[in-house]
Amino acid sequence: MKEILSTKNELIKKVVKLHKRKNRYQSKQYIIEGFHLIEEAVLHQAKLIYLFVNQKSWDLYADWFHQQSIEVILVTDEVLAKLSELPTPQGLIAVVAMPENQVTFTLGKWLLLDCIQDPGNVGTMIRTADAAGFSGVVLGEGCADIYTTKTLRSMQGSQFHLPVIQAPLKEAIFQLKELGIIIYGTELNDQAVQYHQLPYREHFALIMGNEGQGVNQEYLALSHQNIYIPIYGKAESLNVGVAAGILMYGLTVQK
Amino acid sequence: MKEILSTKNELIKKVVKLHKRKNRYQSKQYIIEGFHLIEEAVLHQAKLIYLFVNQKSWDLYADWFHQQSIEVILVTDEVLAKLSELPTPQGLIAVVAMPENQVTFTLGKWLLLDCIQDPGNVGTMIRTADAAGFSGVVLGEGCADIYTTKTLRSMQGSQFHLPVIQAPLKEAIFQLKELGIIIYGTELNDQAVQYHQLPYREHFALIMGNEGQGVNQEYLALSHQNIYIPIYGKAESLNVGVAAGILMYGLTVQK
Repeated sequence: MKEILSTKNELIKKVVKLHKRKNRYQSKQYIIEGFHLIEEAVLHQAKLIYLFVNQKSWDLYADWFHQQSIEVILVTDEVLAKLSELPTPQGLIAVVAMPENQVTFTLGKWLLLDCIQDPGNVGTMIRTADAAGFSGVVLGEGCADIYTTKTLRSMQGSQFHLPVIQAPLKEAIFQLKELGIIIYGTELNDQAVQYHQLPYREHFALIMGNEGQGVNQEYLALSHQNIYIPIYGKAESLNVGVAAGILMYGLTVQK
Repeated sequence: MKEILSTKNELIKKVVKLHKRKNRYQSKQYIIEGFHLIEEAVLHQAKLIYLFVNQKSWDLYADWFHQQSIEVILVTDEVLAKLSELPTPQGLIAVVAMPENQVTFTLGKWLLLDCIQDPGNVGTMIRTADAAGFSGVVLGEGCADIYTTKTLRSMQGSQFHLPVIQAPLKEAIFQLKELGIIIYGTELNDQAVQYHQLPYREHFALIMGNEGQGVNQEYLALSHQNIYIPIYGKAESLNVGVAAGILMYGLTVQK
């Protein structure tokens, strides 16, 4: 088993560079942390490039590593802390290959994100789309990166469960429309239709917009129908991650 | 107009103590920040004890302060930074009196939180309960404090719109039951009933549980019906704030 004891090791320095978005996309690699996410990655055939573990995690998971024929690199806690972006690093850190971004649109339910800036919101919405059985998520212009620590934590491994496509939303909307899929834009005001008054549809795309600005007017104009969530109390709006959950489930479950 | 130029001023030192939970509850006061929240506080008759503003905010809002007959204390940016717990302090900070915690339960819709530890989750759920027209929220044992900076930010002023009661959940459940209100517990597994198969009810209480552990078994046993959100994809669970939104709206809107 290979061992790395120094934070100045060349491989460690190379991996630390993945903390920066630019370097992630150049190398098409990103970092995940903790046993649960690594297990999900392996279970869903993501390609593990390196797996760094400390002695404690080695002792805990050695059998599992053998079963999965995973080569691990034993490192000190100091090296792990260097690799991690968490305040309390976990005992396992892996470098994973990004999936090929060549998903084709199919009939089904799609979530389209327009300029969602908070990584926690992006991650939570992908996780909810996964739970609601959506076919995939499109991250349009201006969204937080899915491979930052914060997004990955709130996504809880859902990137291994459904395709997450980075593409201009206009293009995605046209492709989905060509398949005959109904596009729902979401508005912050009541110029639109209440979501629960819509007929049930098997196939649709739902566009959620920026935390402050909502969905870009251009995309609202391209939608077949704009919808909103009624506010019964005195709140002015909902958290966008919560709103996405209400809509995805509201449009999916049948009473 | 009173002016405070030094961070060592006695009043400033007193207010800074409100960053600690213990001191907030001893003095029954807490801090809010930014024009929007202060406007909400005034609009909903919360008692402003002090209002600190910098020169820039004074110039912007002087007319509004006069209209509302609010006395302000002019402070330097350095003093504001001392009072604030935000990375980028806003130009206005107020000390507000906590409401009297003597709300009586009424018929309606209630959200009961059992040991929700993340302040962002607590705040978001109160905001969503407000939006969904709930009668109030009960924070049971082990919940994050509603008066921390993080909770206040995600709550967006909803504490001024509906009662938020801090009480043992067992007691709240008994009181709500005496009013004839149906209690829904939420389970993480499918030992329960899917929420969207329930008949519509005007009055109910919904218990949401801890991020990792779910709802305490004791409260599940006291519930009339335990419910869950079906997972159609491969996610193991939902974020608790999102789940609360799906349930609150799912049980409230009528198709």
